[in-house]
Amino acid sequence: MNILIKNVNILTMTEENKTIIGDIAIVNKIIKHIGDVPETFKADKIINGDNKLAMPGLVNSHTHIAMSLFRNYADDLPFWEWLTEKIWPVENKLKPEHTYWGSMLSIAEMIKSGITCFADMYFFMDETAKAINQTGIRASICRGLAGNKNEGLEKIDINKKLYMDYHKKGDGRITVMFGPHAPYTCDPYYLQKTIEVAKELNTGIHIHLSESEKEIEDSIKAYGKSPIQHVNDLGLFDCHTLAAHCVHLSDRDIEIIRDKNVHVANNPGSNLKLGNGFARIDKLLKEGVNIALGTDGSSSNNNLNMFEEINLAALINKGVNKDPISVSAYTSLKMATINGAKALMLEKEIGTLEEGKKADLILVDLNKPHFYPKFNLISAMAYSAQASDVDTVIVDGKILMENTEFKTLDIEKIQYNASRCAEELVK
Amino acid sequence: MNILIKNVNILTMTEENKTIIGDIAIVNKIIKHIGDVPETFKADKIINGDNKLAMPGLVNSHTHIAMSLFRNYADDLPFWEWLTEKIWPVENKLKPEHTYWGSMLSIAEMIKSGITCFADMYFFMDETAKAINQTGIRASICRGLAGNKNEGLEKIDINKKLYMDYHKKGDGRITVMFGPHAPYTCDPYYLQKTIEVAKELNTGIHIHLSESEKEIEDSIKAYGKSPIQHVNDLGLFDCHTLAAHCVHLSDRDIEIIRDKNVHVANNPGSNLKLGNGFARIDKLLKEGVNIALGTDGSSSNNNLNMFEEINLAALINKGVNKDPISVSAYTSLKMATINGAKALMLEKEIGTLEEGKKADLILVDLNKPHFYPKFNLISAMAYSAQASDVDTVIVDGKILMENTEFKTLDIEKIQYNASRCAEELVK
Repeated sequence: MNILIKNVNILTMTEENKTIIGDIAIVNKIIKHIGDVPETFKADKIINGDNKLAMPGLVNSHTHIAMSLFRNYADDLPFWEWLTEKIWPVENKLKPEHTYWGSMLSIAEMIKSGITCFADMYFFMDETAKAINQTGIRASICRGLAGNKNEGLEKIDINKKLYMDYHKKGDGRITVMFGPHAPYTCDPYYLQKTIEVAKELNTGIHIHLSESEKEIEDSIKAYGKSPIQHVNDLGLFDCHTLAAHCVHLSDRDIEIIRDKNVHVANNPGSNLKLGNGFARIDKLLKEGVNIALGTDGSSSNNNLNMFEEINLAALINKGVNKDPISVSAYTSLKMATINGAKALMLEKEIGTLEEGKKADLILVDLNKPHFYPKFNLISAMAYSAQASDVDTVIVDGKILMENTEFKTLDIEKIQYNASRCAEELVK
Repeated sequence: MNILIKNVNILTMTEENKTIIGDIAIVNKIIKHIGDVPETFKADKIINGDNKLAMPGLVNSHTHIAMSLFRNYADDLPFWEWLTEKIWPVENKLKPEHTYWGSMLSIAEMIKSGITCFADMYFFMDETAKAINQTGIRASICRGLAGNKNEGLEKIDINKKLYMDYHKKGDGRITVMFGPHAPYTCDPYYLQKTIEVAKELNTGIHIHLSESEKEIEDSIKAYGKSPIQHVNDLGLFDCHTLAAHCVHLSDRDIEIIRDKNVHVANNPGSNLKLGNGFARIDKLLKEGVNIALGTDGSSSNNNLNMFEEINLAALINKGVNKDPISVSAYTSLKMATINGAKALMLEKEIGTLEEGKKADLILVDLNKPHFYPKFNLISAMAYSAQASDVDTVIVDGKILMENTEFKTLDIEKIQYNASRCAEELVK
């Protein structure tokens, strides 16, 4: 289908602190023209861009979407009580159907809030792939892996099968990485086995690293090294690595991350909520590290709202560094778009609005009191916007939401079934 | 008018971590019944509360609403450059009409996001009072005062006149305090003069205290004491005091704040954005200090979104204290409701949903993907909600917004005029 978005403010994310006004022409899955569109362009559908802003769809670079079933189930608890007494017992009861409805609920929430692509790690990922196929969103998925020499090796095969079945499938909207959960849940043998298969298939690794202080202490006790140094010595960073959290980093860790081109998924909301603290984002950015942004699962957040994470990323680094120019509005928006695309190995396809790239974009409705007066639309997106300001969502050239109405999913049915699944799990 | 809200989830904020389901009956300005409403109750208007949550309207306990005219005008700048090269020059051009349209814009934004009451400090406050009168919102206002023995004393008279003209006016929705800006803009003589008049009229003082590290250093240089100790020695805390910010406090400062029953307006978003850091909220709460919550002006935030501040208050204290049980969801909601009412000397009228209190309440629409499943509505309000989830706003028994539509103001006209004023000021 040919879509023409007329007379819209455009934040391409290709040029620092710049917006333009013009038209956008989409031909099938691809952005054909941006800014000036030839008068001869024939559109099947015309969208009026008046008082709207078009920007790249947001990339949620670290999440566990099916965990929306546990949203607001266990809050304001000490971390270990939360994890071992609340989350693990319900996760143990999880069946494929639960992952499906949890995934559908989260995809609905993500589309509604302008997220067009996400990186997911969880169980029963065929169900998540099914939800991605049905709804039209884009994702990099992996099977959460945990184990050692004697246990859990079959999960690596499950992740491999996931790769075989889904990588570049769903019209090319699905890609597959490997998902070793963390160095404290995967022993060195297990990590090396995973690295081997990821290298063999030439894909990336999505892993949690250096999230809590306890993790650092335990790693030093067990291996005499930080988690970053430990997995680096195992060769993990020879694969493209999407490393979630990276909250507690030494200067040496940061050097390794920089030198090995590790992509960091910063999750400010989750790190705060679980009491883990503040990642050294300003320092990482100054070293040239690619920092993406994620929501984490909605049991530790408790939503999948990238506008909140953008706002947090821009605000908390100023507070932590006592520096009002730390992490600018534009930088936080980069983290949520093109940096996320890089972290997911998708920067050639998405992350900016450019001719030839996939048409993954959102329209933000600027006709809201909190967007007046309109001095600076980049500041507005980082500091004033709410997720609910997203009006229209296009992925792969297909409209998934228009005028805040879903086009590819039945939200009442999803909310009903997700609630039913959640009740089943906790009873 | 008699209003009946039927079959609604109710967060009264009178009992820790508790919601009920029932009806709410409003007679004119007052909540007549809550929970069970007699069958004989005759309603002029019935609101269906299905899949909604009723809670007290939010109290924005520190702001400068007309500064919405400078929203997104000057961001990501060093603090002094922002203030002296950007904000002060445009403020110097401010005329009454600007304050009026800036106030109208902010009141629209506040109503839309569930704020029913605010504490404002600025210039041309008659214009703000006019906007309050016209829109039906509730507020505590004061004239921003700055001066010394030789300068600015007439402003104290202006604030006194404001008190005479507006205190308990606007159907009782307006109250007036005195607004000495800060100890670094008001010399001891000027502060004492202000204290005298506030005492004479038996009203409160709204002041900025201990916002930046520089302020503490300068105070120690000038007076040999912290700002808290300095104004305490001047007798300021003998008046009811609403102290905004209080970011940088010594243990001795906290003792004074506790012993003198100073009410603190925490502004987490503004403190982060301007690089001022983190207030010691956990410690203040443990000492029993009343902590309210505010947005500050939207030139340093850049919106008037109390749901963002609630979320920030619950999240950042966990991060700062590395403690996932620091500042719970319920506590952050208290800060935004009953604690705000106390700080504004209005706790007998508003801040909780109770029979006999003023009918200042909001309905939050729970039919959103980010509210499913519904395990805990208190967590949902603090961690999952967006300001845009507010559906209906009632102040003083009058409906100001219903089904997200304004009932007392013309938003297109306001947005147009606020934009025009903003352009005039910056050109």
